[in-house]
Formats: sequence, C-alpha cells, structure tokens
Amino acid sequence: MWGGRFSEKPDAIMEEINASIDFDKALATQDVAGSRAHAAMLAEQGIITAEDAARIIEGLDQIATEIAEGRFTFSRALEDIHMNIEARLKDIIGEPAGRLHTARSRNDQVATDFRLWVRDAVDEIDKQLAGLQSALVARAEAFADAVMPGFTHLQSAQPITFGHHLLAYVEMIARDRGRFADARRRMNENPLGSAALAGTAFPIDRRQTAAALGFDRPMANSLDGVSDRDFALEALAAASITAIHLSRFAEEIVLWCTAQFGFVRLSDRFTTGSSIMPQKRNPDAAELVRAKAGRVIGSLTALLIVMKGLPLAYSKDMQEDKEQVFDALPNLSLSIAAITGMVSDMEPNLEAMKKAAGSGYSTATDLADWLVREANLPFREAHHVTGRIVAEASGRGVLLEDVPLDVMQAVHPAITSAIFDVLSVDASVTSRVSEGGTAPENVLRQARLWAERLQAEKPGA
Amino acid sequence: MWGGRFSEKPDAIMEEINASIDFDKALATQDVAGSRAHAAMLAEQGIITAEDAARIIEGLDQIATEIAEGRFTFSRALEDIHMNIEARLKDIIGEPAGRLHTARSRNDQVATDFRLWVRDAVDEIDKQLAGLQSALVARAEAFADAVMPGFTHLQSAQPITFGHHLLAYVEMIARDRGRFADARRRMNENPLGSAALAGTAFPIDRRQTAAALGFDRPMANSLDGVSDRDFALEALAAASITAIHLSRFAEEIVLWCTAQFGFVRLSDRFTTGSSIMPQKRNPDAAELVRAKAGRVIGSLTALLIVMKGLPLAYSKDMQEDKEQVFDALPNLSLSIAAITGMVSDMEPNLEAMKKAAGSGYSTATDLADWLVREANLPFREAHHVTGRIVAEASGRGVLLEDVPLDVMQAVHPAITSAIFDVLSVDASVTSRVSEGGTAPENVLRQARLWAERLQAEKPGA
Amino acid sequence: MWGGRFSEKPDAIMEEINASIDFDKALATQDVAGSRAHAAMLAEQGIITAEDAARIIEGLDQIATEIAEGRFTFSRALEDIHMNIEARLKDIIGEPAGRLHTARSRNDQVATDFRLWVRDAVDEIDKQLAGLQSALVARAEAFADAVMPGFTHLQSAQPITFGHHLLAYVEMIARDRGRFADARRRMNENPLGSAALAGTAFPIDRRQTAAALGFDRPMANSLDGVSDRDFALEALAAASITAIHLSRFAEEIVLWCTAQFGFVRLSDRFTTGSSIMPQKRNPDAAELVRAKAGRVIGSLTALLIVMKGLPLAYSKDMQEDKEQVFDALPNLSLSIAAITGMVSDMEPNLEAMKKAAGSGYSTATDLADWLVREANLPFREAHHVTGRIVAEASGRGVLLEDVPLDVMQAVHPAITSAIFDVLSVDASVTSRVSEGGTAPENVLRQARLWAERLQAEKPGA
Amino acid sequence: MWGGRFSEKPDAIMEEINASIDFDKALATQDVAGSRAHAAMLAEQGIITAEDAARIIEGLDQIATEIAEGRFTFSRALEDIHMNIEARLKDIIGEPAGRLHTARSRNDQVATDFRLWVRDAVDEIDKQLAGLQSALVARAEAFADAVMPGFTHLQSAQPITFGHHLLAYVEMIARDRGRFADARRRMNENPLGSAALAGTAFPIDRRQTAAALGFDRPMANSLDGVSDRDFALEALAAASITAIHLSRFAEEIVLWCTAQFGFVRLSDRFTTGSSIMPQKRNPDAAELVRAKAGRVIGSLTALLIVMKGLPLAYSKDMQEDKEQVFDALPNLSLSIAAITGMVSDMEPNLEAMKKAAGSGYSTATDLADWLVREANLPFREAHHVTGRIVAEASGRGVLLEDVPLDVMQAVHPAITSAIFDVLSVDASVTSRVSEGGTAPENVLRQARLWAERLQAEKPGA
Repeated sequence: MWGGRFSEKPDAIMEEINASIDFDKALATQDVAGSRAHAAMLAEQGIITAEDAARIIEGLDQIATEIAEGRFTFSRALEDIHMNIEARLKDIIGEPAGRLHTARSRNDQVATDFRLWVRDAVDEIDKQLAGLQSALVARAEAFADAVMPGFTHLQSAQPITFGHHLLAYVEMIARDRGRFADARRRMNENPLGSAALAGTAFPIDRRQTAAALGFDRPMANSLDGVSDRDFALEALAAASITAIHLSRFAEEIVLWCTAQFGFVRLSDRFTTGSSIMPQKRNPDAAELVRAKAGRVIGSLTALLIVMKGLPLAYSKDMQEDKEQVFDALPNLSLSIAAITGMVSDMEPNLEAMKKAAGSGYSTATDLADWLVREANLPFREAHHVTGRIVAEASGRGVLLEDVPLDVMQAVHPAITSAIFDVLSVDASVTSRVSEGGTAPENVLRQARLWAERLQAEKPGA
Repeated sequence: MWGGRFSEKPDAIMEEINASIDFDKALATQDVAGSRAHAAMLAEQGIITAEDAARIIEGLDQIATEIAEGRFTFSRALEDIHMNIEARLKDIIGEPAGRLHTARSRNDQVATDFRLWVRDAVDEIDKQLAGLQSALVARAEAFADAVMPGFTHLQSAQPITFGHHLLAYVEMIARDRGRFADARRRMNENPLGSAALAGTAFPIDRRQTAAALGFDRPMANSLDGVSDRDFALEALAAASITAIHLSRFAEEIVLWCTAQFGFVRLSDRFTTGSSIMPQKRNPDAAELVRAKAGRVIGSLTALLIVMKGLPLAYSKDMQEDKEQVFDALPNLSLSIAAITGMVSDMEPNLEAMKKAAGSGYSTATDLADWLVREANLPFREAHHVTGRIVAEASGRGVLLEDVPLDVMQAVHPAITSAIFDVLSVDASVTSRVSEGGTAPENVLRQARLWAERLQAEKPGA
Repeated sequence: MWGGRFSEKPDAIMEEINASIDFDKALATQDVAGSRAHAAMLAEQGIITAEDAARIIEGLDQIATEIAEGRFTFSRALEDIHMNIEARLKDIIGEPAGRLHTARSRNDQVATDFRLWVRDAVDEIDKQLAGLQSALVARAEAFADAVMPGFTHLQSAQPITFGHHLLAYVEMIARDRGRFADARRRMNENPLGSAALAGTAFPIDRRQTAAALGFDRPMANSLDGVSDRDFALEALAAASITAIHLSRFAEEIVLWCTAQFGFVRLSDRFTTGSSIMPQKRNPDAAELVRAKAGRVIGSLTALLIVMKGLPLAYSKDMQEDKEQVFDALPNLSLSIAAITGMVSDMEPNLEAMKKAAGSGYSTATDLADWLVREANLPFREAHHVTGRIVAEASGRGVLLEDVPLDVMQAVHPAITSAIFDVLSVDASVTSRVSEGGTAPENVLRQARLWAERLQAEKPGA
Repeated sequence: MWGGRFSEKPDAIMEEINASIDFDKALATQDVAGSRAHAAMLAEQGIITAEDAARIIEGLDQIATEIAEGRFTFSRALEDIHMNIEARLKDIIGEPAGRLHTARSRNDQVATDFRLWVRDAVDEIDKQLAGLQSALVARAEAFADAVMPGFTHLQSAQPITFGHHLLAYVEMIARDRGRFADARRRMNENPLGSAALAGTAFPIDRRQTAAALGFDRPMANSLDGVSDRDFALEALAAASITAIHLSRFAEEIVLWCTAQFGFVRLSDRFTTGSSIMPQKRNPDAAELVRAKAGRVIGSLTALLIVMKGLPLAYSKDMQEDKEQVFDALPNLSLSIAAITGMVSDMEPNLEAMKKAAGSGYSTATDLADWLVREANLPFREAHHVTGRIVAEASGRGVLLEDVPLDVMQAVHPAITSAIFDVLSVDASVTSRVSEGGTAPENVLRQARLWAERLQAEKPGA
C-alpha cells in the first residue's frame, strides 16, 4: 500500500493496533465530501483534467451510495477510511483514481474529515440544547409561582418557585450553547491543502475547497493544520461542562423522585423496575445522565493526555482522537435527549413542594430583613435576633409563624404583629423582586423572554 | 459568628476542614472592591444612610491598606476572607459595619470575588500570551528562510523553515487567546445581588454594582448566580489546552537541545547543572513547562469532579474551587513566562538544522510531484516509483540527489536530469508557496502580518 | 552551585520555575535521615574517614534542630532541600561537608526522601482508617437491629439495619487499607546508591543504608531507582479509591441530614451557619469530604500525565510529583478525620428511619419470596403477582400490610393470612440470615468480629 | 418485563439510554457460569428441585452454545444480558426458568459476572506482561555489555549498557504485575447471594457458589457486595500505571528510531509508510502505545467520577462501569502485545549507541570520582575541578579523553596520566559494580536471575 520502499508485510499485531477503519469509517461521508471538493479544485486549477475529475466525482458518488446502502466492504488491510475509499475508487474508475491524491496527504484529509464531523456533531448538540431550553421554559412558565424550598447545602434555605429553579438551567445551557458556538466558529477553518505538513508546490486553491466544505477560510499555517487537535479538545471541554450541568439536574431528579422528597413523579415511560423487587420504580435515565458526565470527562482527559508533549507535526498518537470524540459527543446527545424527555414527563407534586418550602424556618431571612427595614437594626444584629427566635421555634417544635408574639418580643421588643405578614412562603417569594430574584412576576417575565428568544432563533423565524 | 441558633463551638477538625481563610485571603482585594460597590449602592438606593456608607467605605479603605502592608491579622475562627474583613470593619467603625451585609450573602460575595479574580488572571494571561506571540514572531521573521527538517512521527518528512515552525505556535496561541477572550466575555456578569439564592426584597440596583465592578450586566437568575462555577471550569479548560500547546513546544526544546538533534542551544541562563555530573547542562525549564500541563489538567479534572452531581444552589463542595484555580492559572503564567524566555534565549544551530533537513530522503515527495507534473504520472504511481528510488538510495547509503540518473531511469524512464532541480532542500521549501505553505516568502509575509496585528492590538496603538 | 562549567547566573524566571525549596522543604527530616545513613555507610566502607562521618552527622543533627525550631533559613538560590542542607552543613563543619555527596546524586537522594515521606504518610493514613473502622464498628454494634430503608436507585428497596449499612463501609475501608498496605510493601525498597542513574564505582553498601532507613532491600536496578514514581502513583490511586468511598458516605450524611430524610442529626460541633440565613445548620464537613474526592483524583490524574512518555532516567518533570502528593494525602487524612468525627457525632433518629423503612412497599420481595416458599410459585411468577398487589396498594394509598386479604387473594388464590407475618420490616430484616445478610444477629456477630480484629492489630495487643 | 406494577412501555429514549445489552453481552460466558453455579446450589440446598436445576443447567448449556456459535439473538427490549438469557431459557425449558432467579437479583448477578470478567482479563494481562519480561530479559542478556548513553533530562549523563536499560523495564513490569496480582486477590470474593442488597431468607450456601466460580470466599456484607466497584477501579489504576510504563518505553522507541538518535531500527513489520511521502518508515505502533496511556487513564478517571458520591446500594450509574473497563483492559493488552513485538523486532545499532555514549563528556563523573579516590579531594571540590576541565574540552571542541594532560594539571595539579584509564566509556560502565549498577557483570547476573524466575513461574516448571 505504501509503495516501493516496503518489502515485508506488517506484523499481525501491528495491523491490529494500527488499523483505524473499524472506527474511522464513521467519517465516510466527510471523506467523500472532502475528496469531491479536492478533485473539483484540482481540475479548476488545471492540476488534473476536467475529465479525470468528473470520473473521480462519479466514482465517489457511487461509493457514497454503496456506503449508505451498507454494500461497501471495509478492509483492515487498507488501514483507514481514506485508503479504503481510494482503493475502491481505483476498482471503479481505474487509473484516474491515482490522481486524486495529488497535492494532499492523509494528514490533511483526516484533519478535514474530523473537523467536519465535529462541526456537524456540535450543530446537532446545539439544536438539542435549544430543545431542552424550550422544554424547561414551557414548564417554568407553567410553574412560575409554584413554591418549593430553595436549598443550600441541601438544607432548606429560602422559598423559591419551581419556575425559577428551572430557569437557572436555562441560563446554564445558554452558556453551554455559547461555548459550543465559540468552538464551532474557531474550528471552522480549512486544513485541506496543508498536504503532509509543508504545503505543496501544486497551484492549489484552498479558498475554493474551504467554500465547498463550508469552512470560513483556510488555516494559515500548514504545520498547524495537520498537527493540532485543539478543536476536538475544545468541543470535549464544552461537552464536559454541559455534562456537569446535566448531572446536577439529574441528581435533583433522583432526589425529587425519592419517597422522602416526593417533589416530582416520573411516569412508567421514564422509570424501570427490578428483577427481584416488584414494587420498584427507578429513575434510571436520570442516574445514567448523572453518570455520563464521568464518561465525557474521561474522554476529555484522555485526549488531553494523548496530545501532551507531542512534537510537531502529525504523530500517530493523534489517531486516538476519534474514538474519544465519537464516544463523548453522542453520549452527551443521548443525555440531553433523556433530560429533555424527563423535563416534559415529570409531574410535580405542588402540595409536597409547598409544604416542604415552609419547613426548616425557611423565612428566617425575611424576619431578619423585616427587623432591618422596620426596626432599623443593623443586619448583623437582626440576624442574631432571628437566630434566637429560630432556636425558640425549634425548642417548641413549631414553625416560625407559630411562635407567639410575646415570645418574639421577649427576644427583641421592636417586633410587632406586622411580622407575621412576612413569615409565609408566599409572602417571601412575592417579595423577592430584585433583578434575577425568585418573585413569580420576575419568573414569568423571564420565561416569556426566553420563549421569545428561542422562537426568534428558529430557522425561518 | 452565626448568631443565635448555635450553642456549641465547632469541633477542631471541623474548623480545620471548613476554614478557607488560608487560601481565600487571596481574594482580599476583590472582596474589598465588592463591599465598596455594595455599600455605595445600598446608600444610593436609600437602604442604608449615606453616612453609614461613607464610614463603611473608609473602614474598607483602611483594611485594604492593612492587607497591602501585611498588617492584617487573618483568623481561622472567622472562617473566610468575608468574615475576616467584616469583623475587622466592626473593630474599626463599630455598629454601621453590621449594615454592610444587608441584602447580600457570602454566597454572592464569593461568587463575585472569585469571578473578579479569574477575570484578572485571564487578562494577565492574555497579555503574556501576546508577549509570547511577539517573541515567536520576531524569531520567525529572522529565520523565515532557515531550513530545518519537518517531522511527522518524528521521522524526517519534508524540509520546512524554522520560521514556519515557530509560526505554527503563533496560530495555536491565537486560538488559545480566543478561548480565554470568550471565557472572559461569558464570565463577565454580576452575581452580586443574588443574595443567598433567591434574590432579595430590598430595592437593590444590580446594574450599579455591575458597572462599579466592570461587569457587563447582572446575571439573570439568582440561583444560577450563586451556584454555578462554569466560568472557572471554562478558564481551566482554556488553560489546559494552552498548557498542551506549551507542552508540545517544550518537548521540542528538550529534543532540540539533545546532543543528537543539536538544533538549538540554551544559554546558562536557561540551563541547570547536576550535583554529581559536572558536565551537565539541562533544559529544566522546558521539562517543567511540559510537566505543568499535567498539573493544570489535574486542576480542571478536580473541579469538574467537585461540581458533578451537586444539587442547586450553593453547596460547600464549591469551596474547593479556589485552590484549583489559584494553583493552575499562576502555574500556566509561569509556564508562559518560561517559554517566552526560552524563545528569546535559544540560539539555533542553522547548519545542523539544514544538514538534518537533507537527510532521510526528505525531498522524496518533490520527486514524486515532479513525476506528476512533468511526466503526467498519476500521483499514486509516482509515489510508488519514488519509493523504489528511495530504496535504491537507501541500499547504496547515499542521499536522493546522489542517486545516478541511470539508476533512476531504470526505475522509470521518464526521469530526466531536470529532476535534480527539485531534490535540494532549498528548492523544496522555496516551491511550497501554497497558502499556509512553508515557502520563505510565505513565512516572511505571515510573520510581518502577525507583527502588525500584535502591534495594532497594543493599548494606544 | 553546579561548579566549573557555568559562567552565567540563571534567569529570574528560570529560578522561579526551577526552585523547589518552597515545597520540598517538607522533606527536611527525610533528607537529614538519608544523609545520616549515607555518611555512616561511607565511613563503614572506608570511603570517607570515621572522623569526617562523625562531623557530618553532628552537623546534620544541628541542622535538624535548626529546622525543627524554625531557625533554618531556606534559600531559593540553592534550589532545593538537598542543596540547602549541604550548603548549611558546609557553613557548620567546613570541608568534610564536601565529602557527603560522594557516591550519590540528588536523583537518588530525592527518590529516597520522597519514598520515606510517602511511606510515613501511608502509615499515618492506615492508622486513621483503623480509627474510622473502630468508630463505625462501635456504632454498628449499637445499632445492629435499628431498621432503616435500604435503597437502590435511592428508592426504597428492602429494609436493612443501620448497623449493616455502617459495616458496609468497614468492609470498603478494609480493602482501602489493603491497597495502602500493598503499596507500602512495594515501595519499601531503597533507591539510595543508584547515584545519578548508573550506580557507582565506590564500594558502597546499599543494604546497610536500606536497613538504616527501614527499607526492605535495595532497588535492583539503578536506572529504575532514580526514574520511576509508580510508588507515588500507587499511593495516589489508593487514596483516590478511598476518597471515593468517603465521598459516598459523605453524600449519605448530607442526604440523611436533610429535613426530607431526617435520619441523623449532627451537633453544632459539626454544622455551620449562614451569614444571611439565621436558621441554617449546614453539614459543611460532609460536603467538603465529598468534594475532596475531586481534589485527590485531580492529583492522581496530574501525576499520571506528568509521567506519561518520559524517557529514562530522571527528567525534571518529576519535580512536579511532590506537590500533588503533598496536597492529596494530607487532604485525604483530613477527610478521614472529618468523617470519623461525624460518625461519632451523628445521632440517628431511629423512629424516622423505621418509619421510612416501612414505606415504599419495601417488603414486596418478602411477599414474593413467601409465594415461592409457601405456594411453590416460580419466582418470576411470584414477582409478577406481587407487582399487581403493589399496584393495588398504591391505588388505595395504603401500605402493603394494609391490603385486605381478599384483595390479595383475588390476585392470587394461594395467599393466606400467614402472609402478614412476612410483611413487617422487623420480620423482613430478621429473616435475612444468609451469609452477609442484614439480619440483626448477623450484624452483631460481624460487628463483634471486626471489633476483635481491630483490637488484635493494635500494637501490644 | 418488570411484572405487574408497570402499565406503560418505556419511552424510546429511555430504552436507548437504559439498555446495556449492546455491551454487556460480553459477559455472556460469565453470566451462564454464574447461573449454573446458582442453580446447582439452589438444588443442593433444596430451594428448587434437582430436576428443575438439571433442566435449567441443560438450557443454559444450550444457550452457551448458541452464543458461542453466534446464533443467539440479543434483544434491546430485554435490556441486558441477564434478562436476555433468562428470557431465552424460558423459551427453551419453560416454567422452571422462572425459578432460577430465586434468591438472587440482577444486582448481585452483574457484580458477579463483572468480577469474573475482570479477573479473567487480569489473568490474561499478567501472562502477557510475563511474556514482555521474557522478551526484555532475552535481549538484556544479549546486550549486557553493549554501551549506550544513559540520559537524564535527555542529556548525556553517564554511559550505561543497553541490557541495563532494558532491565529497568523488567523491574517496573514486575511491580505492575504485583499490582495486578494484589488487585486480583482482593477482588476474588463472591458477591452472589447478596441478592438485591440485604441478603435473603432462602437458605442459600454462598460458599458453594464461591467454590464453583473460583472465588476465595463470599463477600462479608451484602450491601457492599452489590454496590462497590473498587475492584474495577483498582484494576484500572493498575492498568494506568502499567500504561505509563509502556508509554515511557514507547517514547524511547520513537526517539531511538529517529535519524538523529539512530539507536535502533524497526523492520517493515513494525513500521508504516505514508500516503504522500514515499520515503517514510514510521514507528506507528510505538506512537499508539504511547497514546493509549491517555485512553486507559481516561477510563480510570471516568469510572472514578461515576462512582463519586453515590449513596448505597446499587445505582444505575454503575452501569457505566463496564464500557470503561471493556475499553481500557483490551487496549492495554494490545499495547503490551505491540511493545513485546517491537522488543523482539528492533535491531540496535551498537556502533551508533557506543559513539553517542562517548559524547557529551559522559565520563566527567568518573573523572571527579578519580579525584576523590586518588587525590582525596572532597567530592564537591572534585566536581568543581571537573566542571572546569569540561569547559576546557568544550572550548576546544574535543572529547574529555583528548584534553591534554598539562591542561588538566593546570586546572588541578594532582591529576596524573592514570586519569585516562577512567575516561573511556568501557572503563566507566565496567567500574559501576555497586548493587543495581550498570556494570556488565551485574547486568548479566540480573538478566539470568530474571530468566530463572520467569522460567520457574511457568506452569509445570
């Protein structure tokens, strides 16, 4: 395969470790597209004849069909997708096939194919994330005023609304989408024409192939074009951070589905049973989304390690780039789809949420704030006073609003019966109208704003 | 410290694991800035009096001075930088100090402080990376036509120029800077005013504190504001990819300094000796830069793990965010500084590079290309023919240009003496004028373009 | 410092990146011990005089005292702990100090010092883990029959006892201790005498220094002795797995402390308050233990990356080994101490646990098993029948034991009133007497067995 | 599938994320073995009839054959390997199939199957590592006295022998094998009989199934049995450290194969060519082994993250354990096989090695040591003197042994012509007879010792 210099065949173990066709056949579409663009450019520039180019492109079309229809036979002895396609092209069209590889190398071919693949995957993920945002926004709007406990340290902190909670994820995912968009923009440059590493003496036109493949421009340095994989690392980093966000939501779904929390219920469509325990309804999908964060991060770590300390330009180590990305991005896609499904499927138990929101002295801050506002106490002193009232409530085993006024006044004489107006969870959430705060009017406004934005970005909108 | 509800002191081990003052004192400047902005806003909004605000700000100024001058006593019992500063403020100004914490929480304080710190660190790194680009560009311009071997698989592939090689790193670093710039833009939102997690009923103005602290706008969701750390993760991801790029260059410096390569020499200023072997001159700084990639990636991995599966909003787990970032970003800075120093320090051995460039049949591709161009062979056939000529050269132990013409003609009759014009390394590099290719004219043009860009982005340019 | 070959001083940035004294001063004790053993051996072998050795050892003793008393001045210009100590030795005893470095190198010195440090840290961790086991066993014995829900997928699965749950961690920690013990045994070999990398021509006795330093034997290959760090990697791997175990327990403590679970309560000694919310009692220590798993794994990842692809023998990259280990192992120690403290501190709410144990149809498996045993149904059919009875109970909103007999019989006629004997949680746990099962008698026996084992391994036992 | 409680089918995305059959069918052999042992035990204990057990075992045998012959149809709707096999068993033998699942759960089934799989993989890796040691030892014996440069910092340090260098890897791999052996011993306990998590009321005999499956004993705690995966983590940690060792050797092979080093040559069987550059002979297998360290570490990181913070007992997150291990261990096996192939394939260029060994003033330490021994200089002074002589040699551009005696004497008068006896590389290596040192006699002895050990551990030896 590598021509005149080799006299012996590879060792069996060499072929096994070296061949990439088992996984890089996933690049078949991209490889054909790249070859088509390259052949057309070669003809345009007079490097090959228009006739040869036409036959090459016809042959490539036939190969594309064969692959799409599952009729293509991949061969390990031909190492990779590039050689498999070129060899098949030779079968089909004969001699002109040998002219396709003029002024290019597998090094720039694989860099091109892989960028195209990652770009497509990123586009798909962006669409899915927009879908997840829409699902969250729809439910946030519906539950803009549904009170639930806001937790810090998983301890009841202050009442919030369920809509507000869901919108927090809309914001996180907006940033995730921003990271993918930035990565896409940065990766969308054409490595084709870098040839092996030094460029070529053939009068190629890299702007033409860039345009044909949807790239914004050629990469500016041929060594860089064939030897960097930062575009894949950046995509994996964006995926890892997204996966972390999803894992947090997944953890919450698992918690909310427990008998102890009981905040939401997933239908049979998103729960599974047990082989031994007939009563079980397990939130497996949420657990798997949580776990898949590990998987995605593992891929990022792996590729970072692969790239560490590699001298320029291409080294075979880089062949280990693809399986990590081919595993991580589809698993992220699956996670997004599963979370989106659960967002739409889950039914909140509003009563349970509200009841929990009122426990744990969650309006103690409102009490302290009242002391600041109405009695002009410094916040730090108001905090101390409130702590003592909480201790009273806790000792009596009652809610804050059930502590008798005289008991409160014994702690601080400035307290009046007006205090009871701020101790309910509804009063609490309604009062938090600061920008970004949990007041239902805020949440509703924000949900509608997001709904408009998401609508506006839809194609044709 | 936490007021009326607690009756027992923390266990010694609790205090030890919980206190963050040993490292979060690094946030002192940011904490003072945040408190100053908060106090001014509280007064502006009529939440505290102008007089109290003035005393608070005076007190904060005094604290800033005490810290800057090393006269501030940090206390572990006060847990963190926020409580240390507030407690000292109380010592200095008394009662009004207790009003500062109105309408805020440590949760939004630390989110604010930490964002400010990361933003500053990112700005500093960007400056350093621009400096590294300048150092590379200067040398690339000087060595635009200095021939060296281009490697793939660390085997001689095709001749390139040293300038071209250095410019590859300029491109990589440009993308690294792009990643940091995107991260900075995305993180530059104001979490202050999120309060504990739900916002507040006090009529705060988050746009004012945003403006005062240089943030572009308030964060849109208070839960999100206190509970996400994706800005730190994104900065660590950008740092990790940058560190990978630096590790590749560092590996090359180590290789180039070996007796075997001998491509560059570092001065005594960038080498170290041995305690036992008197002859040693070791490129320690390059090795350390290579190693520090591991350190930075370790911090990214650690923080991803910390954040995995945390329910909203703030959990104490997040306290582990700071040490990772405080370790990784300064170590990246140090690595950039060391590489920049070495770029300026290293003296290439042009003769050794050129000699190496000519070995290993590095112009075989030029021979094959000649056969395509001049004899109209399909590239694949030309490749095969060339391989056989290389085998002849290898068998005879001579360079490609020293294979007799008749021997070449015996392999393929179309070869003429014109072939010898393409077999020199100078001819090879000169011919590669494709966009991004290694031809000296390209390299010079590109180096000058970068010099202009870097000049143009300087403040005042 | 490196003698005659260098004519220029290091660059400032070189010194900054290169100097390790800021962290390797932690090896002072080990370095002095190693030098003492080396000097004694040199004298014993006649390589230096007994008189010189005596003065060296006296000098080292003085240095040890100076360091212990904080009177030693560490210098960055002297790079590391080895050169700092040797330079000070020269100050104190003059010329003989120059003889100490005969037949050794900093390469084997640091390998020796670092092994000793890791060995000590591992010994300390083992002691702490034994202490944690003891704390768990004490409480397991006390709560051998306290019923709580056993969860899978955080859904109620089957009733278990609190003691049984705690003993699961005793088993995990036993394996963790096994891993540390294996690592200790494997690392306990003497690298000293490897010299720079090739051994030495001086007639040294490596068995003598091994004995003096408590090593089992000399390492068998000098290259290996100075260039591997697998002992540190193995210790970090053992630490990571231990940290994972602790993170799981920490997660459970966080969950159990929620208002929703309410299974345990931590005292004020192990909870913290909030700067804004006066009612809060947060389980910070548990959260931090959970988070520190990320930190320890980050260090493992970092050092693995540092070591990847390093050619033999010593490279400066390895200097990055120490800070990772110096951070990870003490943080693990802190985590163990915190968990141990919480195990002893936490008070279970037995009533809440028992009530929760009975919810969620947790004895459904017992019902199915009864059908297998008493009615000879195949388990798969019994499982199906039970599922339908659970659906009946769920539809009626009652516990399994409150489903009327005739309703059960309508689902399967073989059911008799004897079924009610197996539907209580007490009956359920009592019945699970299989080896390793949760029956109180099992748990008690196992707790006592562990108590004996832990007692037996105590020194002097 | 989960019986009577479910009325709706899973969502498509739920089925996709949840089903594990695509990968856990790799556990088919282990699953059948586990079921066979379980059925036999159930019969022995009188829990099912001997007749039912016989039919179950016959059915399982038929299934094993169907799977081995590729005739088994795996179904995604049946989720996993356990349900696929049980469902098929029902097809074949009818009603008794439903009795197999008595007193067990998928939770203990998968724990059992997976342990068996990992145990087998570890055994296979141990065999391969022994084979690699043998290959290394054979070549070390052959090249016990072949001089090459010993490097530190990739700078020439001191001459060593090629055999000595190879034996360093034999030692590393010995420790790797030790880690796998320890992991195997620790994991070789029987989780079967833990049932769902709490054990069972059926009178099972876990010692019988342990014996049947080759486990040393039952696991002591049923919760622990179904919920820990530390055995997989430990195997991945051992694999990661091994992969690091292999990556170091791989890096050396890549370096040694460069034109610049030229220390070894790989045959056509272990090199590959280029699609564009006809002269190329690339050490792809070595590069891939180097890269695969990243892959293995990525899997370790992923599984650590998956397990972090999971409450007991089984959670679905753990389903993500298998793909990591199924990817990492076979990739490690492939790496070992490739390295072993290269060790046997590579031909050292002894002349090039020896020439390189003499460059770089590599015997400077010998000169310094001579000054200590013969002129009684303190080593530190001898080091300084030698540094100055090296500077003289460097200035003159000559080897150390070519510095005229009078020039040396001008640096230090005690030097005599006897000095030239220690300056040759042969004299240097021959002199280093300290334990573990590079002297050929040491290397030969050590190689033979290893050959004996490896012979002795062979079965039947």
